[in-house]
Amino acid sequence: MTQTLILLRHGQSEWNEKNLFTGWVDVRLTEKGRGEAARAGELLADAGLHPDVLHTSVLSRAIQTANLALETADRLWIPVKRSWRLNERHYGALQGLDKAETLEKYGEQQFMEWRRSFDTPPPVLDDTSEWSQANDPRYADIDGERPRTECLKDVITRMVPYWETEILPDLRAGKTVLVTAHGNSLRALVKHLEGISDADIAGLNIPTGMPLVYQISEDGSPLGAGQYLDPEAAAAGAAAVAQQGR
Amino acid sequence: MTQTLILLRHGQSEWNEKNLFTGWVDVRLTEKGRGEAARAGELLADAGLHPDVLHTSVLSRAIQTANLALETADRLWIPVKRSWRLNERHYGALQGLDKAETLEKYGEQQFMEWRRSFDTPPPVLDDTSEWSQANDPRYADIDGERPRTECLKDVITRMVPYWETEILPDLRAGKTVLVTAHGNSLRALVKHLEGISDADIAGLNIPTGMPLVYQISEDGSPLGAGQYLDPEAAAAGAAAVAQQGR
Repeated sequence: MTQTLILLRHGQSEWNEKNLFTGWVDVRLTEKGRGEAARAGELLADAGLHPDVLHTSVLSRAIQTANLALETADRLWIPVKRSWRLNERHYGALQGLDKAETLEKYGEQQFMEWRRSFDTPPPVLDDTSEWSQANDPRYADIDGERPRTECLKDVITRMVPYWETEILPDLRAGKTVLVTAHGNSLRALVKHLEGISDADIAGLNIPTGMPLVYQISEDGSPLGAGQYLDPEAAAAGAAAVAQQGR
Repeated sequence: MTQTLILLRHGQSEWNEKNLFTGWVDVRLTEKGRGEAARAGELLADAGLHPDVLHTSVLSRAIQTANLALETADRLWIPVKRSWRLNERHYGALQGLDKAETLEKYGEQQFMEWRRSFDTPPPVLDDTSEWSQANDPRYADIDGERPRTECLKDVITRMVPYWETEILPDLRAGKTVLVTAHGNSLRALVKHLEGISDADIAGLNIPTGMPLVYQISEDGSPLGAGQYLDPEAAAAGAAAVAQQGR
């Protein structure tokens, strides 16, 4: 007996469009992003996938994506759980910087290390920065754990406990689970699920607004690699992500 | 020490606009209703009210209203709880009927008894009706309790336990609580809070999209009558509700 897990990266955000490092900065979806989210809901409905429970980050762009997808899929009424543990990677001092300018200023090697290094985080973001979350009420309860920068390894460390204590129990209870989150929190989850190596995860890019579906067995492992509901569009989307900053 | 409770009736729905009895039929907001919901979020933000937790019914029009209001108020990230106990009154066999035609066919006395009688429900809705919720998955877990018609007294009976076990504990925990629901589930709650008599509740109408604010003391009673954030618009809205079907 397996259960269905659906991963969904939020649609285009205002800062995706502007090509800025976003991280924990709480930007909204663009009109294009809203359209991607609604399309994701259509894909779910067309595939006969009916989420029983939703897990989201606490960032607006993921929540907007979930709300729009579930509106299209006619599942607005399902229970919702939110956690900062599903948030995007905190990009540290890069938050708010232009990706192309950062590439030009620091060069290819440093740029790619910040973007794709498994265990080297960017410099920390000072709490006095306008892009800091130091005074954001949604993190008041977790202030001791609130990151000021993160590498992918850090994301895995804070995401996996949520997978084990919140998401996996829903799957074991027989529910179809939708997780609406971010490029790097979903890369962390896919790495954990598929057992991808620290080196190989650098080459994995997750497209926006494309439902990625797993069959999860009782022990929490997937029956195989995740399947995109629209593989052709997903491949094009992943290639676009890989080219960011160029 | 008191805590803030905010009640919000959903904005105009597709069937409000068409003047049909809706009840548990899961219709969506109109564009006007979406605008009302966004405006409600502005009113909350302008009043400096910051909900810490959201309670909604499981009907899409209330969930859409909450999502749009919280998007405007920049509080999309707060925890959410949903329950059928906050649903609109089940209108029984009247669901799907035109209000003006029903008034004409059955006359003023019967029409007002169905709309405003405290303890006389309309005829039951057969499970085979296209407007029944017999096959709606959101009620699969409560099938034994799923109503087929309700009077206001029935709504109070199923709503008050939710108030006591879910909403009041959030208030006692120091949270500002937003409840996004329906004309009759909110009338039931207001009756319970303000101790309005079975006779007098017939004259109480709650306008759409207007935040109604209470200060709730530790014992669960309000410090005074609820206050609308925009009293003038609320009075006009309540008068419009009273005229429905005319």
